[in-house]
Amino acid sequence: MQTLHVDLAERSYPIYIGAGVLSRADLLASHIVGRQVAIVTNETIAPLYLQKLQDTLANYRVTPIVLPDGEAFKNWETLQSIFDGLLGARHDRRTTVLALGGGVIGDMAGFAAACYQRGVNFIQLPTTLLSQVDSSVGGKTGINHPLGKNMVGAFYQPQAVLIDTRSLDTLPPRELSAGLAEVIKYGLICDAPFLDWLEENMAALRSLDQAALTEAIERSCAAKARVVGADEKETGVRATLNLGHTFGHAIETQMGYGVWLHGEAVAAGTVMALEMSHRLGWINADERDRGIRLFQAAGLPVVPPQEMTPAQFMEHMAVDKKVLDGQLRLVLLRSLGEAVVTSDYPADILSATLAADYPALVARLNNQ
Amino acid sequence: MQTLHVDLAERSYPIYIGAGVLSRADLLASHIVGRQVAIVTNETIAPLYLQKLQDTLANYRVTPIVLPDGEAFKNWETLQSIFDGLLGARHDRRTTVLALGGGVIGDMAGFAAACYQRGVNFIQLPTTLLSQVDSSVGGKTGINHPLGKNMVGAFYQPQAVLIDTRSLDTLPPRELSAGLAEVIKYGLICDAPFLDWLEENMAALRSLDQAALTEAIERSCAAKARVVGADEKETGVRATLNLGHTFGHAIETQMGYGVWLHGEAVAAGTVMALEMSHRLGWINADERDRGIRLFQAAGLPVVPPQEMTPAQFMEHMAVDKKVLDGQLRLVLLRSLGEAVVTSDYPADILSATLAADYPALVARLNNQ
Repeated sequence: MQTLHVDLAERSYPIYIGAGVLSRADLLASHIVGRQVAIVTNETIAPLYLQKLQDTLANYRVTPIVLPDGEAFKNWETLQSIFDGLLGARHDRRTTVLALGGGVIGDMAGFAAACYQRGVNFIQLPTTLLSQVDSSVGGKTGINHPLGKNMVGAFYQPQAVLIDTRSLDTLPPRELSAGLAEVIKYGLICDAPFLDWLEENMAALRSLDQAALTEAIERSCAAKARVVGADEKETGVRATLNLGHTFGHAIETQMGYGVWLHGEAVAAGTVMALEMSHRLGWINADERDRGIRLFQAAGLPVVPPQEMTPAQFMEHMAVDKKVLDGQLRLVLLRSLGEAVVTSDYPADILSATLAADYPALVARLNNQ
Repeated sequence: MQTLHVDLAERSYPIYIGAGVLSRADLLASHIVGRQVAIVTNETIAPLYLQKLQDTLANYRVTPIVLPDGEAFKNWETLQSIFDGLLGARHDRRTTVLALGGGVIGDMAGFAAACYQRGVNFIQLPTTLLSQVDSSVGGKTGINHPLGKNMVGAFYQPQAVLIDTRSLDTLPPRELSAGLAEVIKYGLICDAPFLDWLEENMAALRSLDQAALTEAIERSCAAKARVVGADEKETGVRATLNLGHTFGHAIETQMGYGVWLHGEAVAAGTVMALEMSHRLGWINADERDRGIRLFQAAGLPVVPPQEMTPAQFMEHMAVDKKVLDGQLRLVLLRSLGEAVVTSDYPADILSATLAADYPALVARLNNQ
């Protein structure tokens, strides 16, 4: 088992990564203060891991709260059902909420913990690659609003994150690919040597090689922990973690939550960010294409939905949380491995990026 | 104008108290960072002060969000309408939410600010005595749940609190009395000399004497700022501010939110806390009666609802946020001016307190 640390003064916490950590009663016990715990999970994960986790927690009064599965349920009504479960079983301020599942479960259980009785402890137990390398680390929690993704939420840090690499054995291949989108992102924004490693190990990752997965998760979490430790509330460098997300969120919102997986939208959105960085003269065509090929190797879409117009992109991006005083800031690449957040770009370059012919670009690349 | 400070390291903020501070554009400007502000208020307050405040904020893009009035609307649906207003007018992360109204507005606008895009700035502009001396200071925000009051919320500090004493000119007498319940509370829990002052000045306060009101608000806010500065997240001494509130919340929940005003329920609840402190031998009958007389002088109810049974009290108190691992902690008085939080009391003394004949007790006192 490997242990990383997210360094946030009195809100610091460990990340444990390894095969079988979900069965480690000692690890869980060291981060639970009372006798009560609630396990928030969903209908897909519950049959796979809920009983096992309840066995690990035999010494506690456990309330399981099983939610419907999917981004479409990341809303107030589902959040309310967590509060109903906690209040119905009389959970007090010393309870601990365990988030067992993917990013949607982690975001909602974390936000419920942030708000229940004005804040109770929680522990992240991410079971998807996407949540293991991204959303379970860093304390962003929240729900969607009909007018925008993650518009209601809190910065709220967990007591610990336990990443069981064996839980990926049951992950559908499409979701594994979606998680790889965020793994590739870390290479693009801050770790160029990791891109070399990913090119060599992509096949191993997709065939669930445990050693390769463990290394990819460790490097991703270490990068995220570094960035979050430097900028918890996203006033600066943390925003670089959103490479591809402004375009990607627009795709998710336009297509309807859950139609495109988050990682799929991020992959296509990052291709747009690569293209814009290239149009700005910051990266060359080979570098752009190298990024696109990595997403393809991971089994991800690299072309935004063709029915989506530039005007629709602009409409959704105007409510992005990175808009400040009306200025749309974008995460772009100065070079492979170096992201910047900027609102200092010519408007026509953004327009051209939104209107670019991605199918033709990708066809050329595949014929090379 | 008087200025107090709530000392919470990087979350410190000033409280300005004085006649006409709502018209002080300079004060507001020094606590607003962007060009956008949202004014959250209600249908009662809007006709009285909204236009005036909008005039003060002529240099900003202002979105007024007018909510229905009352504790019955302190719920998710109303909160959602604040998010709708903010998103509809494209407020970004640098916006400032202004809470113009009483405690319900402050709690909901503050919680909306805590959650909107994971946290934006807000300023408290309390217009009722209750909110001026209590809820606007200290950062408790939240909404009610059908199973319990303030069960969903956040600790979230404002950038500033502006208390305009002239706004009490339009406050209904019943609400003025409700505010006086919390003023009396500060004397009972930590400032015995303030009880002498209140006995001498109660008539002046009820006739809206500005000098008396200003002094009462200053002493109350200073006491609250001291306690909150020592214990922001209510892990210890802050809980003493809830004198009478555990019994009082039970009354509010049982009777239906908004039937009893919060201050009225606190007054009757504090009479129960006085009676229990007396039954424990901590204060004598004269001290208990002195407290009861102050609430009577303030025009407040001192008898809990007679249709409410001890079993109903116990049921509601079991979900109180001060329950830890099944133990009900109560705020009681060691002496007048010295409150303690304790779960160390004989169960039969609590039962006897719930079953006591308050109408007879008060009748005896009135005949002395």
